[in-house]
Amino acid sequence: MKLYQLCGADSEVCFSPYAWRAKLCLLHKGLTFEEVPVRFLEKDKIAHVAPQTIPVLDDGDTSIVDSFAIAEYLETNYPEPDLFGGPVASVQARFLNVWLDQTLVIGMVQLILMDIYQCLDPENKSYFRETREKRFGCSLEEMMEGRDEKRERFRKSLNPMRAILAKSPYLSGTSPRWFDYAVFGTFMWPHVVSPYALLAEDDSLYDWRERMFGLFGGEARRAKQAF
Amino acid sequence: MKLYQLCGADSEVCFSPYAWRAKLCLLHKGLTFEEVPVRFLEKDKIAHVAPQTIPVLDDGDTSIVDSFAIAEYLETNYPEPDLFGGPVASVQARFLNVWLDQTLVIGMVQLILMDIYQCLDPENKSYFRETREKRFGCSLEEMMEGRDEKRERFRKSLNPMRAILAKSPYLSGTSPRWFDYAVFGTFMWPHVVSPYALLAEDDSLYDWRERMFGLFGGEARRAKQAF
Repeated sequence: MKLYQLCGADSEVCFSPYAWRAKLCLLHKGLTFEEVPVRFLEKDKIAHVAPQTIPVLDDGDTSIVDSFAIAEYLETNYPEPDLFGGPVASVQARFLNVWLDQTLVIGMVQLILMDIYQCLDPENKSYFRETREKRFGCSLEEMMEGRDEKRERFRKSLNPMRAILAKSPYLSGTSPRWFDYAVFGTFMWPHVVSPYALLAEDDSLYDWRERMFGLFGGEARRAKQAF
Repeated sequence: MKLYQLCGADSEVCFSPYAWRAKLCLLHKGLTFEEVPVRFLEKDKIAHVAPQTIPVLDDGDTSIVDSFAIAEYLETNYPEPDLFGGPVASVQARFLNVWLDQTLVIGMVQLILMDIYQCLDPENKSYFRETREKRFGCSLEEMMEGRDEKRERFRKSLNPMRAILAKSPYLSGTSPRWFDYAVFGTFMWPHVVSPYALLAEDDSLYDWRERMFGLFGGEARRAKQAF
């Protein structure tokens, strides 16, 4: 298997939240895979799929795009150990996946956009600035204004997850499953590119993230950071 | 079993979204129960519990407050047919329950507050106006300003649920479970008190709501409306 990751100027700095989700699902399944680093301007490396977005998983002749599609593919084709925790949990996961995009990803991007920019080489920097400034309708520098106030709102938006952690060590209960990997994979994005502390140390999510860092022999904790 | 409901001037008009959730969970379990209508100013009827909030379920000597606690109590004590769909789904449900409060309930209340007011008797009207105007920091009339624009935002906030319905007839998959009852129970609130159309007819959630109305021999469809 090959997992195509998104990387910075340093090809070992892999920061895509979606690629991290896919990687954690592969680790959960105990599968062996090779990681292929791809820069924004190296889409020729994934010319065999459409749309050309990261992550891509190649499994023999099959290629799957999109982290959620990869999770579903793995669950269908490599059922043990189970990833979603049953049919109802996997249906609810479709809801949670959209919530993550609308709340967690959007909340984070406003806090780390400039840090992502900083970890790219000059050519990819230009591409990133142009596409993101067009997408958000303002400059990268403007996006970073009021960062601490935005972080307060971001932290508050995480309350539904704290409702779980008040009673369980993981977001999926007694052991980690898809929802843990989807949220933690997203937190790997700021972790890899940014020294800015997203979570307060007295937050139950902070403790949960520490537990997640320890999984798979500390694989995520060893991830190379850009700063 | 006794389920304490919240009612309007007409004791048959029961509109609490949380009481509806509990009622639907009881129906799912196939349990027999008596419904006790309670007005805002009739808290003496539930003087045996704390906090004195609706719904309350009395099961013999046991009393349970809070719709989610009632769902968990039923699942533990009357396991068949299962309500949550397994341990991971029930953990994720704690997240969804908070999301419902922060998004669905808050989104709806801005659209129907005046309609709730209208279905109360004069004494309960005064109580409702005073407590709600204090809670929201503005008059009931001010809360209703820009209703159509608020409805647009409300409809957009439901996207995570549409991601499920794009692939499944129910929010829990092939058949309804807790998440369906929690969302549909919340939609019973506007349905009972307000003629204002919250969902567009071409919305997948509209079709889903129609399917939910048909459950349990059309129990919810027969609910008395205030208008």
